[in-house]
Amino acid sequence: MWRVGIYGVTGYAGFEVFRLLRRHPAVEIVFAASESGAGSVLSQLFPTTEDFPVVGFAEAPLDQVDAVFLALPHGVSASVARQAHDAGVRVIDLSADFRLKDPATYARWYREAHPAPELLPEAVYGLTEWNRAAIREATLIANPGCYPTATLLALLPLAQAGAVGPGPIVVDAKSGVSGAGRKPSLTTHFVEVDENLSPYSIGRAHRHLPEMEQMLQAIHGTLGPLVFSPQLLPVARGILATIYVPLAPGWTEAMVHELLTEVYGREPFVKVLPRGTLATLRHSVGTNLCVLSVTGVPEAGMVIVTSSIDNLIKGAAGQAVQNFNVMFGIEETAGLL
Amino acid sequence: MWRVGIYGVTGYAGFEVFRLLRRHPAVEIVFAASESGAGSVLSQLFPTTEDFPVVGFAEAPLDQVDAVFLALPHGVSASVARQAHDAGVRVIDLSADFRLKDPATYARWYREAHPAPELLPEAVYGLTEWNRAAIREATLIANPGCYPTATLLALLPLAQAGAVGPGPIVVDAKSGVSGAGRKPSLTTHFVEVDENLSPYSIGRAHRHLPEMEQMLQAIHGTLGPLVFSPQLLPVARGILATIYVPLAPGWTEAMVHELLTEVYGREPFVKVLPRGTLATLRHSVGTNLCVLSVTGVPEAGMVIVTSSIDNLIKGAAGQAVQNFNVMFGIEETAGLL
Amino acid sequence: MWRVGIYGVTGYAGFEVFRLLRRHPAVEIVFAASESGAGSVLSQLFPTTEDFPVVGFAEAPLDQVDAVFLALPHGVSASVARQAHDAGVRVIDLSADFRLKDPATYARWYREAHPAPELLPEAVYGLTEWNRAAIREATLIANPGCYPTATLLALLPLAQAGAVGPGPIVVDAKSGVSGAGRKPSLTTHFVEVDENLSPYSIGRAHRHLPEMEQMLQAIHGTLGPLVFSPQLLPVARGILATIYVPLAPGWTEAMVHELLTEVYGREPFVKVLPRGTLATLRHSVGTNLCVLSVTGVPEAGMVIVTSSIDNLIKGAAGQAVQNFNVMFGIEETAGLL
Amino acid sequence: MWRVGIYGVTGYAGFEVFRLLRRHPAVEIVFAASESGAGSVLSQLFPTTEDFPVVGFAEAPLDQVDAVFLALPHGVSASVARQAHDAGVRVIDLSADFRLKDPATYARWYREAHPAPELLPEAVYGLTEWNRAAIREATLIANPGCYPTATLLALLPLAQAGAVGPGPIVVDAKSGVSGAGRKPSLTTHFVEVDENLSPYSIGRAHRHLPEMEQMLQAIHGTLGPLVFSPQLLPVARGILATIYVPLAPGWTEAMVHELLTEVYGREPFVKVLPRGTLATLRHSVGTNLCVLSVTGVPEAGMVIVTSSIDNLIKGAAGQAVQNFNVMFGIEETAGLL
Repeated sequence: MWRVGIYGVTGYAGFEVFRLLRRHPAVEIVFAASESGAGSVLSQLFPTTEDFPVVGFAEAPLDQVDAVFLALPHGVSASVARQAHDAGVRVIDLSADFRLKDPATYARWYREAHPAPELLPEAVYGLTEWNRAAIREATLIANPGCYPTATLLALLPLAQAGAVGPGPIVVDAKSGVSGAGRKPSLTTHFVEVDENLSPYSIGRAHRHLPEMEQMLQAIHGTLGPLVFSPQLLPVARGILATIYVPLAPGWTEAMVHELLTEVYGREPFVKVLPRGTLATLRHSVGTNLCVLSVTGVPEAGMVIVTSSIDNLIKGAAGQAVQNFNVMFGIEETAGLL
Repeated sequence: MWRVGIYGVTGYAGFEVFRLLRRHPAVEIVFAASESGAGSVLSQLFPTTEDFPVVGFAEAPLDQVDAVFLALPHGVSASVARQAHDAGVRVIDLSADFRLKDPATYARWYREAHPAPELLPEAVYGLTEWNRAAIREATLIANPGCYPTATLLALLPLAQAGAVGPGPIVVDAKSGVSGAGRKPSLTTHFVEVDENLSPYSIGRAHRHLPEMEQMLQAIHGTLGPLVFSPQLLPVARGILATIYVPLAPGWTEAMVHELLTEVYGREPFVKVLPRGTLATLRHSVGTNLCVLSVTGVPEAGMVIVTSSIDNLIKGAAGQAVQNFNVMFGIEETAGLL
Repeated sequence: MWRVGIYGVTGYAGFEVFRLLRRHPAVEIVFAASESGAGSVLSQLFPTTEDFPVVGFAEAPLDQVDAVFLALPHGVSASVARQAHDAGVRVIDLSADFRLKDPATYARWYREAHPAPELLPEAVYGLTEWNRAAIREATLIANPGCYPTATLLALLPLAQAGAVGPGPIVVDAKSGVSGAGRKPSLTTHFVEVDENLSPYSIGRAHRHLPEMEQMLQAIHGTLGPLVFSPQLLPVARGILATIYVPLAPGWTEAMVHELLTEVYGREPFVKVLPRGTLATLRHSVGTNLCVLSVTGVPEAGMVIVTSSIDNLIKGAAGQAVQNFNVMFGIEETAGLL
Repeated sequence: MWRVGIYGVTGYAGFEVFRLLRRHPAVEIVFAASESGAGSVLSQLFPTTEDFPVVGFAEAPLDQVDAVFLALPHGVSASVARQAHDAGVRVIDLSADFRLKDPATYARWYREAHPAPELLPEAVYGLTEWNRAAIREATLIANPGCYPTATLLALLPLAQAGAVGPGPIVVDAKSGVSGAGRKPSLTTHFVEVDENLSPYSIGRAHRHLPEMEQMLQAIHGTLGPLVFSPQLLPVARGILATIYVPLAPGWTEAMVHELLTEVYGREPFVKVLPRGTLATLRHSVGTNLCVLSVTGVPEAGMVIVTSSIDNLIKGAAGQAVQNFNVMFGIEETAGLL
């Protein structure tokens, strides 16, 4: 049994880590920490769970665990990561702190100096299906953002195979409200969200954009640019990204479908739907799956890839556990089926 | 044209007053005030409305209006009410400050001394259908709470006619989230409300209880007790109260239905459904109607009255405008159809 | 491994049985049958599931299974039950066909003669926590209705202990739309349900009423009558029943709470909340739990018990699996945690 | 007072026509017809309305009206249109029957021969803001589809001004469920829509595509192609179209914004938001407005226009009434504010 701790357990992603690890056959949760929730028990915050105590960060016995999951705000996360790293504990960080390789890019998007630049070389980007070898050896995982997970799993195979033609790639993405976190605000007020759909930070203004472009360019340097439109849906969970990809000459819907099917054929958590069936939110919500569908638009030299994930599972906690499994040599699906 | 001002225009009830008065044929809105929203224009807060300026309380020209609507937190409301009253401006107060006749009862439920006890004798309870004569002359209207409006319109005819037998009256009431106000909190967070139903302050713990009992007892001294269970619905607007009334000997469903039909036969804003049809939320939302239906349970000596209102209209702003119309001798339905 | 078949797998309850049994460590699903869905694979109907073939009733290999789950319309269910019973296969029937002991009562409520009266003496009412000994030996289980499960788990301990005073017991119950089945109708149309709340068959008109009264009277002959108000909520899953119980002299909230805590103390699937905390839909949805909370109303000689279940799990498929576990001597929580 | 009749009053669009015309100061509704609802009164179908009788088509007194509104399925609509047209009654047809100029295009998309080709030359496309002169004289209006209304009001000014560069225009559109009609189906079942988002007929497969391209090409022959992705939202009403437009050289966000502001500056029902503010569903739902916002993406040579309408009002009944007002020389906003 591997022993783990969770920081930030009172947020939606942190609690989802807890929920998944409680069923994990090879894990013992040693502590669940939260500064704001310290002293309470988890069932007071999440009614379907049990009376597990929530401790403050200072009381979290870091020396008794093999790994920690950090579901903390960016900036805060880096300092806990440093502390854990120094103590020899492997870190899976769900925040944005270690996703961008270049601290200057971080500073531009997050409007503060990078809080732990010395750790950046250690950090491995945890898009599991594309980085397994490095994840296996990693001491610090930068778990991908929810939008990048949905987008990159759809685009990377095409980028790698040279299927993407010149011109902008449009990612029209819609997310459930849990993606905005558990902290109350007018943006997440029921009356404001209900019966509404709200675009925000569209074009090239959202912080997940550099994360996506960094990874795309690592695979194929000349792609893009990305045009990215996040939109808030009146649902609790799930992301559906409708991705419009200009095709390189010679590529067709059938070829893209075959490519995705081949690349992901043995992946337990990526499912490519048969041609003619479209991915919906329901295809993934409640699971660790990323579900993809392909629709050609030959008149426009384009293919539309629809990508569906549960933002809290494959887009956060589930992928974190998947990475944990890879790091510790456990069956990759453990705790996730 | 009557000239009016609105305080608290950035809350849901305050904005609803604004929205209704903008269509009112006999009203000019002179100012819309809010401490938190001062300096903005209304369209920034409520996207379907126009660029009406929001002023702070100090800038509100109280000397230029005939009446003010107060959609403010209790306690705050009383001090603005006093100021307006002193200036000779008629006041329609949507808060709880002047609903309870006895300042000691107020102090017990609101946990502070009554903020303006000297005005209590002036205050007229604005349940329009039951208090028209007094409303016509009033300088200060205590506009009823949303739950009391739905409950009392159903119960008062039965109480008055002696149709209510001994024993508890159960009011199982369900409300949309706008009833909890626009201030963000975990209680109103989309993810917490969505796919949920939450009882709160059930039994005899909700502040609307003394308001209901005061009015019932004024009609018929020996009724009750009320058992009142408010519950939060995953909808934006509307209240449905399912009311279980023990019948006095000899009373039947048919008699109760006939009684309600007779009492409300000429009322423009109370609708009694034919026997066999049940009131739902949809019967009233978006209108100033209170819609009632009657179901007998002879085996239990009981009748179930289902009462449906839009909590922001008949339960707040609509009834406030209805009272305004009565006060100023305008057609009672003006601005409300 | 026990071998089972499922009839009616394309309905919400039938699919939920499938979903639960796929994770069950001691079960092999031999067939999933549906007349309307025959020839398809399950993933076409329920996107998160796998490509399991759906067969017609005639192709279902009844001779290869130890038990069948029937999630069929009443009337239809009895004939499949008879066939399975004759073949020596144990039956767990989720329909209403075997819940009422008296065929005349069945005929009155379902407006047709009982389709298999000769099997009624075999049928055991599958409210697991109250009938384990009989379930263990049963060849035919009448799995309880969703509303009766929520209601009876709350009321039976009080009835048994003599805590219920004279007078009507009011059950104000609210249910998610999956309870109305998967067959499209105007009642389940999104636009009709969304932002609405609809009472239906209130008073003493719903078919679950005789099922509840039969069980209550078996425990304590002189109770009632029940007044039962089902209401359709704009959510997919879950039932919250707010139950108003007149107390026998001497009984208090504390005593009722202690009684429930004692009766259900060792039950894995009934949870009694601490005093002061109220059960909400969220307490049970997605689990096999029935969650209870107790609120006293001494002024009215009453206690309010709030009971929350997931209508498709504890109210249908979960309880069916729980009964299956009892019948076959498997750990009762297998496949349900 | 103009006298009108409504066909198809029991559908969502037909009832919305009724609802709007009931408040219209210059209209008397002579009849409300429906084959399926004949003999009922409207309040039985739409609870907030009144007891207006619904007649069958044969009983509708076509000789007593000046105009009829047809909210009927395509195919059916044409035959009623012919009958009314022959009787000298002006027709506003909300179906697709007269939107496509070329009967061969109709036959290809609707898979049947055009039902009334002889009337096609009479038909005027009722996109009010772009066709007023012709609408004024028209005897037969083809009221635009909901998606085309949202899309064309955004694109036509750019097309006309030469602002659109070469390459595909992507229209990622999301619609509320009322757009799918009132007839029950699994697609509109609450449980299937709730917490979901479903793309359908994406790419170039939806019947609204030829309608949009016909109008775009009439303005500027060389545009396109359109790539159009309709998606079903879990809301009752509203369309939000996120439109990605390649810009012609020299064009910027500021210029597009100024262009739209100028084109629509005096339009009562098109609102262009200030730069920096994004249109959401809430900006238009419940009104006859089309609300537009503009976001430049200079890195991609693109502008994103977000267009929001209420699919039942500006996308159907409201625009129909607006066209009626133009046809009869009434103030264009009558009945629509």
